[in-house]
Amino acid sequence: MTSTATPVHYLGVDISGATLRAALVTTTGEVAARREAALEPNAVGAQVAHVVSELRDTPASIAALGIGVPGLVNPETGRVVVSTDLPAVVRGDLRAELQQATGLPVTFENDANAAAYGEYVAGAGRGSRNLFYITIGTGIGGALILDGRLWRGASGFAGEVGHITIDPEGILCTCGNVGCLETVASAPNIVRRTHERLLRDSTSSLSRLGMTKDFTAADIAHEANNGDDFALLMLERTGRSIGTAVATVINLLNVERIVLGGTIMDAGDLILQPIIREAGKRSFQPCFEATQIVAAQLAADAVAVGAAMLARDAT
Amino acid sequence: MTSTATPVHYLGVDISGATLRAALVTTTGEVAARREAALEPNAVGAQVAHVVSELRDTPASIAALGIGVPGLVNPETGRVVVSTDLPAVVRGDLRAELQQATGLPVTFENDANAAAYGEYVAGAGRGSRNLFYITIGTGIGGALILDGRLWRGASGFAGEVGHITIDPEGILCTCGNVGCLETVASAPNIVRRTHERLLRDSTSSLSRLGMTKDFTAADIAHEANNGDDFALLMLERTGRSIGTAVATVINLLNVERIVLGGTIMDAGDLILQPIIREAGKRSFQPCFEATQIVAAQLAADAVAVGAAMLARDAT
Repeated sequence: MTSTATPVHYLGVDISGATLRAALVTTTGEVAARREAALEPNAVGAQVAHVVSELRDTPASIAALGIGVPGLVNPETGRVVVSTDLPAVVRGDLRAELQQATGLPVTFENDANAAAYGEYVAGAGRGSRNLFYITIGTGIGGALILDGRLWRGASGFAGEVGHITIDPEGILCTCGNVGCLETVASAPNIVRRTHERLLRDSTSSLSRLGMTKDFTAADIAHEANNGDDFALLMLERTGRSIGTAVATVINLLNVERIVLGGTIMDAGDLILQPIIREAGKRSFQPCFEATQIVAAQLAADAVAVGAAMLARDAT
Repeated sequence: MTSTATPVHYLGVDISGATLRAALVTTTGEVAARREAALEPNAVGAQVAHVVSELRDTPASIAALGIGVPGLVNPETGRVVVSTDLPAVVRGDLRAELQQATGLPVTFENDANAAAYGEYVAGAGRGSRNLFYITIGTGIGGALILDGRLWRGASGFAGEVGHITIDPEGILCTCGNVGCLETVASAPNIVRRTHERLLRDSTSSLSRLGMTKDFTAADIAHEANNGDDFALLMLERTGRSIGTAVATVINLLNVERIVLGGTIMDAGDLILQPIIREAGKRSFQPCFEATQIVAAQLAADAVAVGAAMLARDAT
């Protein structure tokens, strides 16, 4: 299977969502091959081992396996210690199981951390040494790279940008705080806020959708791209909240780059420009001027690419 | 002056306020001798050189000189590049002047960074590897130590906790943003808020002060210590704003320790406990539980001790 003429690749696997996404990645972060499957939460080990065997048939050796998980990884032992979304990966010893099944070195990383590292090596973070990554989806997560290394925090919890207070008199968050960024700007909360405003304003094309079926944050982005004023307003206001959080990150950390990912960023400049404007108003100017605020580039590959590159670094 | 039997000391000088404060510091951060003088903004070099010559007469050799400045230090050149409060230190080449006058290696550091490092080595930060330092005085500054090293940011501006947004609909800050922590919780703003509330409430002992003379944040702390309900309320409310900012730091960075300094901390638990309570409500619980929130210990020595220890590290 391997020979001196075969290029070395790393396999990254993203098991943080409903779909398992595997990417065979070169030493510099390019994706050479992909596999996708519906995630089977109680058979993750077998599923990953199967993907490894499939991709070993491609003309590349695999040097190491990196896995992005929705949970916390103990940096000492490298084991997954908490995962509310995928409890099966905490039970047993998935790492030992996979090492035995594949013969490869195996590393785990939190999904947001892995995605940040993917963007850093091969996406919107290239050329920077310090970045903060924010992903906006069902929840809002973040991760931090300082001097080229993930900063995981004293106990692995750094980057919780979704739970910083944006509106001190806002609504209750699942975390127990009120007015977290997530209560305003996560995809379900963008939809909630849009529904609430539609009760007062029926001129939008979303109004028709809202009266007849559930719509998503992606629908709002789509209507905004079609020029709907109301959808544009919702993105503008959402961007302001995200921009307030971005300003806080800039002021505290003076990173070179903020990389914003997640489905809501599909709206492109309609969300990015309001974020940049508000961050500019709310951050210390010398910090702001030293920061580039950009959209992520790796889309659904980010976690797998980052996990693969972290596996590369560990070998 | 020096001999093999003479212990090695480092001289730290704080030129960040109206008083020049010099401390002769042991290799482990204890203060062996102090000097104070009214700062002469246009003769800083001569003043510092004079302090060096004075303290060289004590029975200790001085191995290096560290200076804490109210401004930005270029990490490449080690020179002070911006100082709105003390512009004289930017003109000419103070470092070369002092090296020539004293024969010592000279290092500069931003005052908040130096104070944080002082607390880290010899104060409330001892035993931690990761801390965020907040100083609350005329302004609010901050600094960050990660894995035992100052994190200065990509261009030297990290730690601007005074300018993170606490109240998105708050009042205008000198920085151009509205609702910065500084607009609520700096010493002059605590006084401003107290005056404003006194116009509506005359039962406090501060009311008498407020009607007859200007009072300070220290007076408010003093009255609170004497049990005045109104002064206690003002500290409680101020603590909540600071606690909101502390929660943000905890969520983003997952540091082990938050160290709070500045004159308002003289109120002790009357301000510290509200800060801790609000931080607990507003931060992600696993991060909060991993963080100690404590008062600074070095008081007016912090900048000089930190500057001395940074000079130690540089030699």
